[in-house]
Amino acid sequence: MSLLTVGSVAFDAIETPFGKTDKIVGGAGTYIAIAASYFQENQKIVSVVGEDFPETTLDDLRERGVDLKGLQVKAGEKTFFWAGRYHNDMNSRDTLITELNVLENFDPVIPESYQGVEYLMLGNLSPQVQRSVIERLNTRPKLIAMDTMNFWMDIAMEELEKTLKMVDVLIINDEEARQLSKEYSLVKAAKIIRGMGPKILIIKKGEHGALLFFEDKVFFAPALPLEDVFDPTGAGDTFAGGFMGYLSSSDEITFDNLKRAIIVGSAMASFCVEKFGTERLETLTEREIEDRVQKFVDLVNFDMVQTVS
Amino acid sequence: MSLLTVGSVAFDAIETPFGKTDKIVGGAGTYIAIAASYFQENQKIVSVVGEDFPETTLDDLRERGVDLKGLQVKAGEKTFFWAGRYHNDMNSRDTLITELNVLENFDPVIPESYQGVEYLMLGNLSPQVQRSVIERLNTRPKLIAMDTMNFWMDIAMEELEKTLKMVDVLIINDEEARQLSKEYSLVKAAKIIRGMGPKILIIKKGEHGALLFFEDKVFFAPALPLEDVFDPTGAGDTFAGGFMGYLSSSDEITFDNLKRAIIVGSAMASFCVEKFGTERLETLTEREIEDRVQKFVDLVNFDMVQTVS
Repeated sequence: MSLLTVGSVAFDAIETPFGKTDKIVGGAGTYIAIAASYFQENQKIVSVVGEDFPETTLDDLRERGVDLKGLQVKAGEKTFFWAGRYHNDMNSRDTLITELNVLENFDPVIPESYQGVEYLMLGNLSPQVQRSVIERLNTRPKLIAMDTMNFWMDIAMEELEKTLKMVDVLIINDEEARQLSKEYSLVKAAKIIRGMGPKILIIKKGEHGALLFFEDKVFFAPALPLEDVFDPTGAGDTFAGGFMGYLSSSDEITFDNLKRAIIVGSAMASFCVEKFGTERLETLTEREIEDRVQKFVDLVNFDMVQTVS
Repeated sequence: MSLLTVGSVAFDAIETPFGKTDKIVGGAGTYIAIAASYFQENQKIVSVVGEDFPETTLDDLRERGVDLKGLQVKAGEKTFFWAGRYHNDMNSRDTLITELNVLENFDPVIPESYQGVEYLMLGNLSPQVQRSVIERLNTRPKLIAMDTMNFWMDIAMEELEKTLKMVDVLIINDEEARQLSKEYSLVKAAKIIRGMGPKILIIKKGEHGALLFFEDKVFFAPALPLEDVFDPTGAGDTFAGGFMGYLSSSDEITFDNLKRAIIVGSAMASFCVEKFGTERLETLTEREIEDRVQKFVDLVNFDMVQTVS
C-alpha cells in the first residue's frame, strides 16, 4: 500500500533555551515523510517550494522512496519560512516570523500516477486545501487522516467542519480538541469530535502521551519521560508520520494495529525532539527504532495478579 | 503485615462546579485508611480530632479493621476544618477557610500495641511531626512512605530534608517535584529527589497518570480518562491509601509489585473523584474494584509485533 502526504516543505529558524539555528529545512510534509520512510517505502508527496529550496533535501527524500512528482517548484518564488522561539518550559512558543511565500496561493496538483493511493495524510494546511486534495483523487483512499490547528478553528470553522466530515482519522492536541468541541473533558470532547466525522480520534497530550478513541474503546499511549526536550519542532508531524507510515505499511485498520501505530509514532516523536529540526530523524537505524519501541513497551508493562486479597 | 497511617482526620467543606457540601468528614488519614481497608485488614492510625467529630465515622473505621488507639480525641477542642472552592478546570482551587484547631499542637502518640508495625504511611503533615513518628517507633518499619506539599518546602525546607532522609517512598505531584528539585524535567527532578533520601519516588500527574522511579527503572501508570471529575478532594490520599494498602498486604517490595500497587492506587483514586468526599469510597465492592483495575489493564495494553518492515 502507498502513502500520500500533503503538507508544507519549508524553512524554519528555531530558538530554544539550548541554542538557535539558522534557516533549516522543516515543514509538516518533510517531517511526516522522513518519519514514515522507516516503515513505508512507497510514498508520494503533494506540496510546493520556491526556487530557493535545497536540491540535496529533495534528493534525500527521493532516496527514502518519496515520489516528488507532486512537489511543485515555483520559479522566482520563495519557500515558506517560519521562525519561532520556545519558552523555558518548551510547551509554549512565540512566532517571530511567518512568510507564507509559495504557500499563500498553494493549489495542490495531483499527478496522474498518484491516483489510486490507498492512504492519505493531510498535514496542517487550510481545510479548503485539504479538501481539494480529497476531491481531486478519483478514488477515495482506504484511510484519510488529517491534522489541523486552532488557527483554522478561529478563522475557517465552517470549512474545517466540511473537511472533517470527509476524513477517517483526526490527529490533534488536547488544547485543539477542547477548542474544537468546546468541552474541557477530553472524553466528552472525543464524543463531540467523532460526531463531526472522524471515526478514529487521536488526542496528543505532549509530554503526557496520547489518547486513541476507536469504536467504543480507548487506548492511552505514554510519552517517554525525557531528561531534555532539545527542540519540539516537528514532533507532532513526526508522530503522524510514524503513525501513518506504520499503518499504511501494515495495512490493517484494527484497534490492535492502531495502538501499535501510535506507539511507533510516539517513539519517532521521542527521537525528533533530541536534536534541532529533522537532524535526529535522518540517521536512525532499525535497531535504534526497535530499542526505542521496547522502551515504550517496558514503560507501561505490568502484570496484574490478584487485586483484592 | 500491618499498616500504620499518620494523617489528619478532619472536616471539609467543598465547592465544585457541580455543587457544594456542608461540613463533611475528610482528612488525609481518613481517605488513606478507607482506601487501604479494601486490601489491608490490619490497620492502625495515629491522628487527632476534637470532641465534635462524629462517633459514627470512628465506628465505621473500626469496622474496616482500623485500630484507633492512636487517635486522640481532645475534649473541649474542635477538629481540623478546611473549606475550599475548585475552579472550572478542577485542577486549581482556592482555600476559603483553614481552621487548624486540634492540629495546631498535634503531638503524635504511639500506643504500645502499635510498636513493630511493618508499613508506615506518613500523610501530609509538618515534616517535624512526620519525623517524630518514625523516631517514636522502637523498630524501623520495613517500608516508610510519605506525602508532603509545597507549603512545607516554602516554610520548613530544612526539616523536610531531614525527614526525606529517613523514608523509602515519596509520593508527590509534578508541581511539588519541580519545586523540591528546582528542575522542570521530571526525569532530572527524580534523580535529585532520590538523592535526597527516598529510593522509591512516585510523581503523580493528576489526569495524566503517575510515574514510578525505582532502581534504574521507570513505570508510567495511566489515569483513566473520565467524563467528569465531580470532586478531586482526597484523590491523592486515596491513591496513597490504595497503594500502601495493596503493598502492605502483598508484602513484596519489587518493581513488579510496586507497579501493581500504583495501578490499584490509581483505580481507587478514580472512584474517589466520582462523588463528594469519601462517599464513593465507602460502598465499593470487590467486583467494582476488579472491574476498574481491568479498565487500567485494557487502557494501556498493546501487543507489539514487528516494528520496522
